[in-house]
Amino acid sequence: MATLDHGDPGDAPSMPTPTAPVTRPRRPSAAEEARTVAASTNTATLASLSADGHPWASYVTYGLMGGNPVLCVSHMAEHGRNLAADPRVSLSVVAPGENSDPLASGRITLAGTVLRPSGSDIDAARAAHLAAVPAARYYIDYSDFTVWILSVDRVRWVGGYGRMDSATAADYAAAVPDPVRPVSGPAVEHLNTDHADALTAMTAAFGGFPDATSAACTGADRYGLDITVTTPRGVSYTRVGYLSPLASLDDLRAATIELTRNARRS
Amino acid sequence: MATLDHGDPGDAPSMPTPTAPVTRPRRPSAAEEARTVAASTNTATLASLSADGHPWASYVTYGLMGGNPVLCVSHMAEHGRNLAADPRVSLSVVAPGENSDPLASGRITLAGTVLRPSGSDIDAARAAHLAAVPAARYYIDYSDFTVWILSVDRVRWVGGYGRMDSATAADYAAAVPDPVRPVSGPAVEHLNTDHADALTAMTAAFGGFPDATSAACTGADRYGLDITVTTPRGVSYTRVGYLSPLASLDDLRAATIELTRNARRS
Repeated sequence: MATLDHGDPGDAPSMPTPTAPVTRPRRPSAAEEARTVAASTNTATLASLSADGHPWASYVTYGLMGGNPVLCVSHMAEHGRNLAADPRVSLSVVAPGENSDPLASGRITLAGTVLRPSGSDIDAARAAHLAAVPAARYYIDYSDFTVWILSVDRVRWVGGYGRMDSATAADYAAAVPDPVRPVSGPAVEHLNTDHADALTAMTAAFGGFPDATSAACTGADRYGLDITVTTPRGVSYTRVGYLSPLASLDDLRAATIELTRNARRS
Repeated sequence: MATLDHGDPGDAPSMPTPTAPVTRPRRPSAAEEARTVAASTNTATLASLSADGHPWASYVTYGLMGGNPVLCVSHMAEHGRNLAADPRVSLSVVAPGENSDPLASGRITLAGTVLRPSGSDIDAARAAHLAAVPAARYYIDYSDFTVWILSVDRVRWVGGYGRMDSATAADYAAAVPDPVRPVSGPAVEHLNTDHADALTAMTAAFGGFPDATSAACTGADRYGLDITVTTPRGVSYTRVGYLSPLASLDDLRAATIELTRNARRS
């Protein structure tokens, strides 16, 4: 993952580092994160080019064909006229969530060019948009509306503070949205509320912090748990990975029970 | 208000029209609506121009100096580099809400150019951003972050289906955010739950539908109530205006009691 340092104002806090290897540190790739954000909602903001070359930001709805967004916009709106005149666009999607700090939200920018579907893509694009935006059935057949497919050739993902990377168009196209993260909220809360000791044991055994005194789960995805760990040396962040990737949220309980057993045996 | 017709696919529903004058039809102006949307949140999507001229959509936070958004972005992010190279931008803001139909949401596009504040504006812009985005205190002083003021010269407002207009930069600058609409949700619910008969009486007397059989309030602003009215002729939409504009939500109760009394006397 690409990282860059801020210019240090001189008072940046320091965090304790792991004192043992993190057993299974795998996280979702930037391409997987981006596909997960793309699949998480049906609203976005489009950047298009107005007639005078000025960039124009406008709210839109979208569906998905694979990872390519499908828009349905009116030629009576400025963005509709922009797309017809210049196909260069990008789309910003913000994952829904209730972060009190807005910059902690996951978001992506998908850049590329729009094209009008042809052949069998005409029906497929229409169906993809309607599946994501049921209300579009009231206007999609008005003569001023056009369906556009955004052919993605550049992907930027930001997962929150200090978590960001680009993905290639090929990796983005091939990636699969995370089956766990978007639906894991209640399970994460349950882990923290009812299994705090197990989280601490897992973090001590597999998260690189044998001196963990407590651990809280801040997120779950197909590969593991994001952990905030407290030690006598301070608070830090790490991962506890499952023994194998999960296919669905249904597998999370068994995976964490297995981890807890292994941790207590270790 | 500018209106445009969709190309009619032949099966558009028809709505009953008022059979009496709407007594006080005043609605917020497009400039007032846009200022209200701008003041309703602290997150937006920026459209900037990348080095190759491609439009770049990215999630940002903002505060306000008057109606001008104040951004704080890192030069390590593509949008930060874009602003430094070309000041032409626009910003899309979507009013928070829980519409099941995303295109029913109010939103604006503010287009203009960004500039770095100078003189007394340096402290004012910093304070405006921090007031809206408290978490920015953790990074606003990093050397890679820059505060930018978006000098707005073009304003487009969309209030939902069929409600949209442009505002001049001067009207937008002079307008005041609505003191009622963003906080009126519980009051509107109370009107519908406990005062349905009063709403029907007001709508029959002042909303242009003497044949109203029921009426529901869908929104309140400083000038009046948005009403969905049912008549034997079908369902339509109208306004019931207060006798004078409200300064705050605290005035809503007295204003609607006055309207109800007048309606029952009429």
